[in-house]
Amino acid sequence: MKLKDLNALFLHELRDLYSAEKQLIKALPKMAKATTNEDLRQAFEMHLEETEAQVKRLDEVFEELGVSPRGPKCAAMAGLIEEAQELLYEDSDPRVLDAALICAAQRVEHYEIAGYGCVRSLAQQLGMHEFAAELQETLDEEKMTNEKLNELALGEVNEEAADASEEIGSTPRP
Amino acid sequence: MKLKDLNALFLHELRDLYSAEKQLIKALPKMAKATTNEDLRQAFEMHLEETEAQVKRLDEVFEELGVSPRGPKCAAMAGLIEEAQELLYEDSDPRVLDAALICAAQRVEHYEIAGYGCVRSLAQQLGMHEFAAELQETLDEEKMTNEKLNELALGEVNEEAADASEEIGSTPRP
Repeated sequence: MKLKDLNALFLHELRDLYSAEKQLIKALPKMAKATTNEDLRQAFEMHLEETEAQVKRLDEVFEELGVSPRGPKCAAMAGLIEEAQELLYEDSDPRVLDAALICAAQRVEHYEIAGYGCVRSLAQQLGMHEFAAELQETLDEEKMTNEKLNELALGEVNEEAADASEEIGSTPRP
Repeated sequence: MKLKDLNALFLHELRDLYSAEKQLIKALPKMAKATTNEDLRQAFEMHLEETEAQVKRLDEVFEELGVSPRGPKCAAMAGLIEEAQELLYEDSDPRVLDAALICAAQRVEHYEIAGYGCVRSLAQQLGMHEFAAELQETLDEEKMTNEKLNELALGEVNEEAADASEEIGSTPRP
């Protein structure tokens, strides 16, 4: 029986996140390279460093549990990254691309928020309070990254992308 | 040029959500059928009805914009659903499966929270305030569904799944 108990589910979920983070480490540099917005580039680069530290945190959990971090490839993160990468090959106004990259990155952050929320709660239920605290730390970082992306979108990126519309005479509909 | 302005991005994002919701409508009945927890089954069934109404809301937006809702298949939702469906074919304790289904469903809700957050903000930026209000309504529903799933997990499902561990003598590690 594969999911015979809550421990098995906890491991299944941890391995899914491990695969997701590993995929993200490969995608973030491409997203950072694609943006022309300095603040957004910095946000992607900062989150890459953070993601590398989060993988180390997961490595430590796996080590203490005495199990391998290897599991099936996270199909959802593969889809999220596929969508983000498709944007890079589209012929786009660079300001609109920045707004699009934020939309893609916020989907990624929300995936991780849901995932870490689950493993944190499972760790608590299993009485693994130290792990729960560590996973909560990562969860807080993902939430802060999402918040930062939100601020960038609402503060400048979406407005600059809207300027692209005005220049080409595209009229927003009511 | 594909993403030449913010309107183009708005449409791209709306079509992604449309594809995501259509896929979810096919997946939710399978998730409802798979659970043995009556409250969770009801939550999935209620969210199916809600999702159908959300698709109608999107249909109306596309109709008012005078464009087709058809776009590429949302790869991220395809991945999310693939992960959820894999759970159904695993040999699992039914109580652990319920906890796993909530983890999968919360990932789906978070995808939609990120997506509707983006299109709501883009609609605001484009001065489409009626659309922004409608998309905010869906966003609020997705957040409430996620909250409901959270309450189910923390209120009963995770605890019952932990009972499965105790019965088989599996010892949670510190």
